[in-house]
Amino acid sequence: MSGLLENTISHIEPLDILAMKSAEERQKMLTKPTGSLGKLEDLSIKLAGIQGKSLPVINKKAVIVMAADHGVVEEGISAYPQEVTAQMVLNFVNGGAAINAIGRETGSRVVVVDIGVKGKNEFPGVLNRKIAEGTQNIARGPAMTTEQARQSIETGIEVVNAEYEKGLDIVATGEMGIGNTTASSAICAIITGKAAAMVTGKGTGLDSKQLFNKISVINKALSVNEPDASNPLEIMSRIGGFEIGGLAGVILGAAAKRVPVMIDGFISGAAALIAVGFCPQVKDYLIAGHLSLEPGHQSIIEYLDMEPLLNLNMRLGEGTGAALGIAIAAAACRTLSEMATFAEAGVSDKGG
Amino acid sequence: MSGLLENTISHIEPLDILAMKSAEERQKMLTKPTGSLGKLEDLSIKLAGIQGKSLPVINKKAVIVMAADHGVVEEGISAYPQEVTAQMVLNFVNGGAAINAIGRETGSRVVVVDIGVKGKNEFPGVLNRKIAEGTQNIARGPAMTTEQARQSIETGIEVVNAEYEKGLDIVATGEMGIGNTTASSAICAIITGKAAAMVTGKGTGLDSKQLFNKISVINKALSVNEPDASNPLEIMSRIGGFEIGGLAGVILGAAAKRVPVMIDGFISGAAALIAVGFCPQVKDYLIAGHLSLEPGHQSIIEYLDMEPLLNLNMRLGEGTGAALGIAIAAAACRTLSEMATFAEAGVSDKGG
Repeated sequence: MSGLLENTISHIEPLDILAMKSAEERQKMLTKPTGSLGKLEDLSIKLAGIQGKSLPVINKKAVIVMAADHGVVEEGISAYPQEVTAQMVLNFVNGGAAINAIGRETGSRVVVVDIGVKGKNEFPGVLNRKIAEGTQNIARGPAMTTEQARQSIETGIEVVNAEYEKGLDIVATGEMGIGNTTASSAICAIITGKAAAMVTGKGTGLDSKQLFNKISVINKALSVNEPDASNPLEIMSRIGGFEIGGLAGVILGAAAKRVPVMIDGFISGAAALIAVGFCPQVKDYLIAGHLSLEPGHQSIIEYLDMEPLLNLNMRLGEGTGAALGIAIAAAACRTLSEMATFAEAGVSDKGG
Repeated sequence: MSGLLENTISHIEPLDILAMKSAEERQKMLTKPTGSLGKLEDLSIKLAGIQGKSLPVINKKAVIVMAADHGVVEEGISAYPQEVTAQMVLNFVNGGAAINAIGRETGSRVVVVDIGVKGKNEFPGVLNRKIAEGTQNIARGPAMTTEQARQSIETGIEVVNAEYEKGLDIVATGEMGIGNTTASSAICAIITGKAAAMVTGKGTGLDSKQLFNKISVINKALSVNEPDASNPLEIMSRIGGFEIGGLAGVILGAAAKRVPVMIDGFISGAAALIAVGFCPQVKDYLIAGHLSLEPGHQSIIEYLDMEPLLNLNMRLGEGTGAALGIAIAAAACRTLSEMATFAEAGVSDKGG
């Protein structure tokens, strides 16, 4: 089978080494001690390689927030009721959620996608790409069909391609879905090989007894579904959810267009694991916006060998940590592009 | 003696507990799990207490960059020649330095003050508040007179007061001065009681032999000057520099106006030690923008019991880490002020 997914993967190329070399050389000529801007310098060089420009630019910024529901909520794995997913989608389009406030602060547009929210509501301002009204309960069987898994990923590719047409220098991943830390912990356990108990946290706020139940449910989902760790499409279809598949598609689609992807926390990290499962090369296009407090996130960060830009004890999702990371990336590009060189400014270099 | 300094200190009041309580209550009502925005929530509550507003605002932002020279450079303690201070001042007003690029990204105006740069040049766009053409060599005697020390601090107060009149919701501290990590290490050693070797780093890029010399010079400055650790004015006059005194004044002046102060790295941290020496209450008005790679900065952070917002391996100064921190503080205020409550958004709360 060859379709949008395979075609997209085939367009993901290595980073542009010449652009990176040029950015690195320029960093040495700018009016500061070499290396004194730390991670901003490294990031500017990586962004040059991703965008294929010796002077990368971050002006047009978007956060893509994928929302979907999870059948596994009937096992009592969340502190919040399922209807919160749809309620929060409405909050997003009304501009009242954390990601809206942070998006405004960092000049990022927020694109909200219903890829599988329970209910028939059509929300004005939401991109309606609903695949189903939530996944099936993974404690009892697969989350979705293989066709739906593929559709979720290809939907993400289509959404990011449409944003690319509007102008897109960087994209942040965000999500909403009551129950989606459960699916993410399962994905994380499968791909990193760690025990569920090691990569499962309290999500939106479980107590210890509820956490114990959540871990049991995840272990049940793993034994009922037994996905092949090397088959990301199978993991998606057996565990879900639609928003995680959608974000995996956003990641692959962005990389194919040489758009850097700012990854948010744990759920976005699970989507990154899926995307990298399809195409290891995509890893070079990812930047970890922050380290989430959700314990499994550290395992994902280590598995993908990433270094989060921020560590602010956040654990909200929605793309909030990634949107803050965009501000750091934008500063990295600006310093590289806009600073004067020693020669231009007439500043004496070290020992000069 | 009672003047601007004493008058300013007398106006530094405790944080507004009622505003903090109100912000804390609101955080619990906003559409997110309580605590899920981590340090953004804590910061928003602190900013409420500083500004004395239950909904603190960060729109008008300034970085005050104080520049001055240090006579101790004749001991060979810097990798860069002394003329770089004046050259960088020119770079600041031409918009070509890192702080200019980051200031543009975060919407912060950059205010450049010549408080003691060597040379008679008047730079257009620079506030000329020159006290002397650099300090005296602290390896041989005091940096400046007691009157000059007081003048440096009062100059900082006057500068921040003038910025306050233009509109100022937050101020970041920045500096430029070849040799100023040497003075800062000496101040840090005096106030924290640590050995010079523990709080001295490679500055703009010394090798190991040069670092050894720098530590010797600092130890010589300490034994020649023997300042009283409990007398911040004496520390300023014996060690300097003018820009460090100026920033201590900015900190005190801002706190007296209930303006939050985003502290940059090591040199700004030394200024914070001086300011806190004058008035312990001022500590509540400080936010550590980032953790610098300069090793003494960690000692200052611990001494002042602060928690840096960012850790990006930066060590440039100029206010660069503080200016990035402003972006985080602005996001903290926006989420507090602009997010909808559960009731407003019709979102079910936990267990609801």
